[in-house]
Amino acid sequence: MPVESARARTLTHADPDEVPLQVALAALADPVRRSILRDLAVHDEWTRACGTFDLPVKKATASHHFAVLRSAGLIEQRDEGARRLNRLRRPEFDSAFPGLLAATIDRAD
Amino acid sequence: MPVESARARTLTHADPDEVPLQVALAALADPVRRSILRDLAVHDEWTRACGTFDLPVKKATASHHFAVLRSAGLIEQRDEGARRLNRLRRPEFDSAFPGLLAATIDRAD
Repeated sequence: MPVESARARTLTHADPDEVPLQVALAALADPVRRSILRDLAVHDEWTRACGTFDLPVKKATASHHFAVLRSAGLIEQRDEGARRLNRLRRPEFDSAFPGLLAATIDRAD
Repeated sequence: MPVESARARTLTHADPDEVPLQVALAALADPVRRSILRDLAVHDEWTRACGTFDLPVKKATASHHFAVLRSAGLIEQRDEGARRLNRLRRPEFDSAFPGLLAATIDRAD
């Protein structure tokens, strides 16, 4: 079994409609995570791989941030070969938390 | 000098326009603090004293929560005799962070 399939199996996603406001706010209350979301907001879906973000943290910490964003229903991830691609779950998250992304990532820190 | 004047002198307030988004989000990312803000949102200004909130925490923890809200530009406090009265800084905070209160305290957790 290829390595990427084994990794893909471990990817769990939260439905934004099932995410408590507390979890959404805790995910957004971090500058590194907001920078990831802003990056995704201005790129086409599924074009940004985890390793290509310019983040001021080590790889393990970055992985943790992506996992937090996934658990909060903010991003969707899928593995394509050795790359883990991302998309911002804008429509779903906006539907579950109207105005929250507009008030947080559509503005500067 | 009366005790209340000495207490009043220690009250420092942050201008919402000077508050970083990170500080605002960190303040809002707590269920007890959101319950305080929701309480203030439905009562007239300066009618709610700190001691009258029904909070699931000890007095010292409650005082900390009020201080965090003050530092984030979310509430204004003033001492009146032995009571510390509060108001939600709705217009100022909404001006500095458009849509953020609507997306967080104008909805259920």
